[in-house]
Amino acid sequence: MLDYTNGEGLTIAHMREAHERIKPYINRTPVLQSAYLNDLTGADLYFKCENFQEAGAFKVRGACNAVFGLSDEAAEKGVCTHSSGNHALSLSYAAGRRGVPCNVVMPRTAPQAKKDAVKRYGGIITECEPSTTSREAVFAEVQAATGGEFVHPYNDPRVIAGQATCSAELLEQTDGLDCVVAPIGGGGMISGTCLTLSNLAPDVQIYAAEPEQADDAYRSFKAGHIIADDAPVTIADGLKVPLKENTWHFVSQFVTDIHTASEQEIIDAMKITWKYLRIVMEPSCAVPLATILKNPDVFKGKRVGVVVTGGNVDLDKLPWLNT
Amino acid sequence: MLDYTNGEGLTIAHMREAHERIKPYINRTPVLQSAYLNDLTGADLYFKCENFQEAGAFKVRGACNAVFGLSDEAAEKGVCTHSSGNHALSLSYAAGRRGVPCNVVMPRTAPQAKKDAVKRYGGIITECEPSTTSREAVFAEVQAATGGEFVHPYNDPRVIAGQATCSAELLEQTDGLDCVVAPIGGGGMISGTCLTLSNLAPDVQIYAAEPEQADDAYRSFKAGHIIADDAPVTIADGLKVPLKENTWHFVSQFVTDIHTASEQEIIDAMKITWKYLRIVMEPSCAVPLATILKNPDVFKGKRVGVVVTGGNVDLDKLPWLNT
Repeated sequence: MLDYTNGEGLTIAHMREAHERIKPYINRTPVLQSAYLNDLTGADLYFKCENFQEAGAFKVRGACNAVFGLSDEAAEKGVCTHSSGNHALSLSYAAGRRGVPCNVVMPRTAPQAKKDAVKRYGGIITECEPSTTSREAVFAEVQAATGGEFVHPYNDPRVIAGQATCSAELLEQTDGLDCVVAPIGGGGMISGTCLTLSNLAPDVQIYAAEPEQADDAYRSFKAGHIIADDAPVTIADGLKVPLKENTWHFVSQFVTDIHTASEQEIIDAMKITWKYLRIVMEPSCAVPLATILKNPDVFKGKRVGVVVTGGNVDLDKLPWLNT
Repeated sequence: MLDYTNGEGLTIAHMREAHERIKPYINRTPVLQSAYLNDLTGADLYFKCENFQEAGAFKVRGACNAVFGLSDEAAEKGVCTHSSGNHALSLSYAAGRRGVPCNVVMPRTAPQAKKDAVKRYGGIITECEPSTTSREAVFAEVQAATGGEFVHPYNDPRVIAGQATCSAELLEQTDGLDCVVAPIGGGGMISGTCLTLSNLAPDVQIYAAEPEQADDAYRSFKAGHIIADDAPVTIADGLKVPLKENTWHFVSQFVTDIHTASEQEIIDAMKITWKYLRIVMEPSCAVPLATILKNPDVFKGKRVGVVVTGGNVDLDKLPWLNT
């Protein structure tokens, strides 16, 4: 049995074990390219489309690894978590596949599409205010009441090992990358990316992309210690949460740099991705392209993997339509 | 040299020659699935995502086969065509890749996204009224003026052989289909599907899907001869054109049945595909799913290939938003 005590103890064996465990429940998502977006950026972009996971986000990887790694005894009481959305519905999906209960605490401001999906997968929602403080307080009550296993959305080594399987596939699906860019919120995807790339492709640089209006990871990275904001406001609803110790371990050691983008830059990048790559994806996943467009000197001429993290959006409220 | 005189003369060798010729210029598009859409229809649906072609539609296959099959001498004067959009931009893309001029006649009502893409690929647009009569009259003038090689959007055996490569890939990417459903306008995609499946998988049934408001193929199929409307009105802008002799050859011989769907059914199917498959696709490609939902007894329990024909939509004018 591998040791899942903390992020520091994670090895490539954890990623491999996770990949075997979750394969029946996840999609091996395709990597798409667009000549137009390549021309626009001067880079060779490989979009790993995690929006095509059944639950619409990479987070099914970590959620399935946590849920299917539980002993039968531990699984019986189910799982619980707090999440802005995609982890909530991914954990509900995973729990549903295993046939155990799932309780989730979600901010009342989370997109309706995400709340609907949680319910569809059989998850039970308790709403909280859109701040880290409220989220953690409400969650403590829910956990005490249900006794379910807590699966943190990102500060959980089982979750990080699951997210790490995404860049393992990306490496197999491409032929030599120079760098990978992924959005950063709590740091689960970036940490998994660091775990895999630092072991399997240590020359590949790792860039994180963050909204200017929720730039706590950027400021933490520059300061050398975790800085947490309580309730940042950004259209990239998946990226509002702060780093925690297990993700900070990876971010501080293996990330090359963190770039930020404004709200308008995120919306513009989202619209051109929808238009030219023809995929439905969330504002959060547009942040990498926004930072690539903003920092051409860093990416020009490079082979760049871009993680498209999720595709759960309210189709009636598209940000460029101001409805 | 294979014979491209008419549809009747096409063999599986034409499809194979086309596939070799066009491979450097097209994407081998992925096949996506959604457990939600499978539950909803009771079928096992395999979506062949031709919206992920660089020019955003399966029509690059036929256009590239025609353009790259020309002798150097014939290619010199370029190519020309009339099209509601996707063939226009696909031919512009193909001509651009070969470095020869491309003139296209488009209805003035064609989606702006499609007109913009034609220009981006270097195509020269002449507008006509949105009727078959006007389209053919304006085109005659343009062709006389330029002397370019006419590549008809569907009634051209080179084009049909190119479109046929799509279902050859679909067969390779899936493990035994019971049927394939594709939209029908002029019949180019359906004819290519018939060419490939009647040769390589003759047990697979072929269904065509058509808007009720442009149901000339349905009526032709039932009557046993081509019935053409002049200017049908439907949101599925790619499906307004009538069958011609080379596509009628395939439709009349190899199609199992043609089903129709209303405008609202098309819009509903489009929105749920965007939501659950998370792809950007045109109203035209939602017609197959609309007919699958409408005819559950035909498709329930079957393994169904669905051709998603294109993804060039005006993101500012989504039909469910009434803007």
